[in-house]
Amino acid sequence: MKTEKVRLKNSPYNIVVGSGIIRLLGKELKKTGIAGDAYIISNRRIYLRFAGQIRESLKSAGFETGHSLVPDAETSKSFKTAQTLIGNISSFDKKRRLFIIALGGGVIGDLAGFVASIYKRGIPYIQVPTTLLAQVDSSIGGKTGVDLSQGKNLLGAFYQPRLVFSEINFLKSLPLRQVRSGLAEIIKYGAIKDPRLFGYLEKHYSEILALKQSALEFVVWRCSGIKARIVEQDEKEKKGIRTILNFGHTLGHAIEAAGAYGKYNHGEAIALGMLLAADISKELNILTPQKHARLETLIGASGLPTRIKNIPLAGIVKAQFYDKKFSGKKNKFVLLQDIGKTRIMENVPLEMIRKVTRSRIT
Amino acid sequence: MKTEKVRLKNSPYNIVVGSGIIRLLGKELKKTGIAGDAYIISNRRIYLRFAGQIRESLKSAGFETGHSLVPDAETSKSFKTAQTLIGNISSFDKKRRLFIIALGGGVIGDLAGFVASIYKRGIPYIQVPTTLLAQVDSSIGGKTGVDLSQGKNLLGAFYQPRLVFSEINFLKSLPLRQVRSGLAEIIKYGAIKDPRLFGYLEKHYSEILALKQSALEFVVWRCSGIKARIVEQDEKEKKGIRTILNFGHTLGHAIEAAGAYGKYNHGEAIALGMLLAADISKELNILTPQKHARLETLIGASGLPTRIKNIPLAGIVKAQFYDKKFSGKKNKFVLLQDIGKTRIMENVPLEMIRKVTRSRIT
Repeated sequence: MKTEKVRLKNSPYNIVVGSGIIRLLGKELKKTGIAGDAYIISNRRIYLRFAGQIRESLKSAGFETGHSLVPDAETSKSFKTAQTLIGNISSFDKKRRLFIIALGGGVIGDLAGFVASIYKRGIPYIQVPTTLLAQVDSSIGGKTGVDLSQGKNLLGAFYQPRLVFSEINFLKSLPLRQVRSGLAEIIKYGAIKDPRLFGYLEKHYSEILALKQSALEFVVWRCSGIKARIVEQDEKEKKGIRTILNFGHTLGHAIEAAGAYGKYNHGEAIALGMLLAADISKELNILTPQKHARLETLIGASGLPTRIKNIPLAGIVKAQFYDKKFSGKKNKFVLLQDIGKTRIMENVPLEMIRKVTRSRIT
Repeated sequence: MKTEKVRLKNSPYNIVVGSGIIRLLGKELKKTGIAGDAYIISNRRIYLRFAGQIRESLKSAGFETGHSLVPDAETSKSFKTAQTLIGNISSFDKKRRLFIIALGGGVIGDLAGFVASIYKRGIPYIQVPTTLLAQVDSSIGGKTGVDLSQGKNLLGAFYQPRLVFSEINFLKSLPLRQVRSGLAEIIKYGAIKDPRLFGYLEKHYSEILALKQSALEFVVWRCSGIKARIVEQDEKEKKGIRTILNFGHTLGHAIEAAGAYGKYNHGEAIALGMLLAADISKELNILTPQKHARLETLIGASGLPTRIKNIPLAGIVKAQFYDKKFSGKKNKFVLLQDIGKTRIMENVPLEMIRKVTRSRIT
């Protein structure tokens, strides 16, 4: 078991990573000083698989538990589900002291974190991520949110968890497509910040896809550290440092939205978004064709898409215009100068965006 | 115009107090560095009366404005109203950059602050309080919240405004009952922290009730300073310092709830709550009968209630049990040792609570 500290002045916390560590969850929780009853938010599938071990560990540390399950779908990340959960929590809340355990992937983490942030002006919560994507990215950093019909993540808060507990064994039953989705974000970390990680992925991507324990432990650990360092410097995304985490997300989100969140999952869309950002970087002569090719090769070898299928250009451009990162009618791209080095650029000409996107559409 | 600073490390802001200062609002806003469009949240009555001057001042400083009006009622402070507002704001939000102006009393301030705290993970907001109660208390300190059917302020966040702008002239049309309600909180500040203010009130309470400008300026200014100092030391009510602001609120809230929020308004219920806390303090021999009498005399002279009418004891005791401040089944009272000096006490015997409450019921 390894522990990485997220050193935030007002809300420091630990990220714990390891295999077969779930029985230690109760003990780790005690260390945080958290008190009261644990309220688990999860979905049925994940709860049935993992909650037994979690409740046992909590019980032996003296915590009582309650839970609410939400449907296993992107649509659960809604204001309406948050409302239902808050009603349930309020009914459960007899001792007037509880904390929330977000047990699941990114949807559960964002939703449960948001509920924790607004219930009684904020109660503690911890993240127990069960997908690779959530372990390397969404469980860390305190971005919580739910969607409204008007837009994704339109409601939310920056609200840090008290603990992130990444049990590598939970990843063993992940479907390949979800592993690939997580791998896309791992490639992102290498591309923006860590040439050594990128080199490791070029050699060992197949071990990650095959869910090899040592490879998973290494990448979850390494990415947790990268994310922790970035969040420490820019907790609330105000200083432009956290912005580099959006590499691939400007057009990635647009592709996700234009495909109505069904055609591509998050990681697949981000893979395409990273390639488009790299395409722009190459067009602008700030990234060499050789380095561009390394990114494209790794993404392709991982089984992630490199071509956009059946989404019209106009749909992507329109969705990009409505993205909340596209603020004040200026666009903002995280571009690549090198493997491990980014450059932020505003006002990338629409013609260039159209050109690189068009040439990836099949 | 006087300026009081709230020195919070991550979110410092100014409280501006004065008469005839509304035309300077736009200029003061500029100073905060706030940018984008202003979105005013208010109710029809207040908007019709004051928004003209506000929009003029904003316009001359280069801000465009939009607005949403909510019904002038306690029930507006709901999750449902927040939802409607967020829909409206999202439709208005074209430039993708805006801030909120809470124009009104405590209900508007809490509601608008909550909406600002969750929209797009937090957008800036400012408070333009229009009641005495809001100017001396609720507009300062970043406590935002809405009610659920399960309880008051069950949802909320600590989220600081970027400016509190207290225009004393706005108080001129306040009904007497609302002025008295504000006066109750002003008496509270004197009782818990400021013997000089308390002495001033004993002499000048009638000037406040008569809405005399110099008296209002003095008390709004003085109370803003007291609240600012307390909030600076304990922004998120974690250190027990902010707790003293709850003087009179433990049983006050219970009386408000037991009267179904119709019998007594907030200030009236708090006046009764302060007297009950003083009764307990006298019973425990930590407050002299003479000092107890000074509080009762001032409250009575101000026209605030000193007797509880038509609410049964059982209702108050039950409501107190369900109050969210009554955590972990222990009660917690802010008691008085002296005018200007408090003592926190947990587990005040239920029998004593019943006794003092019973003897104030008519």
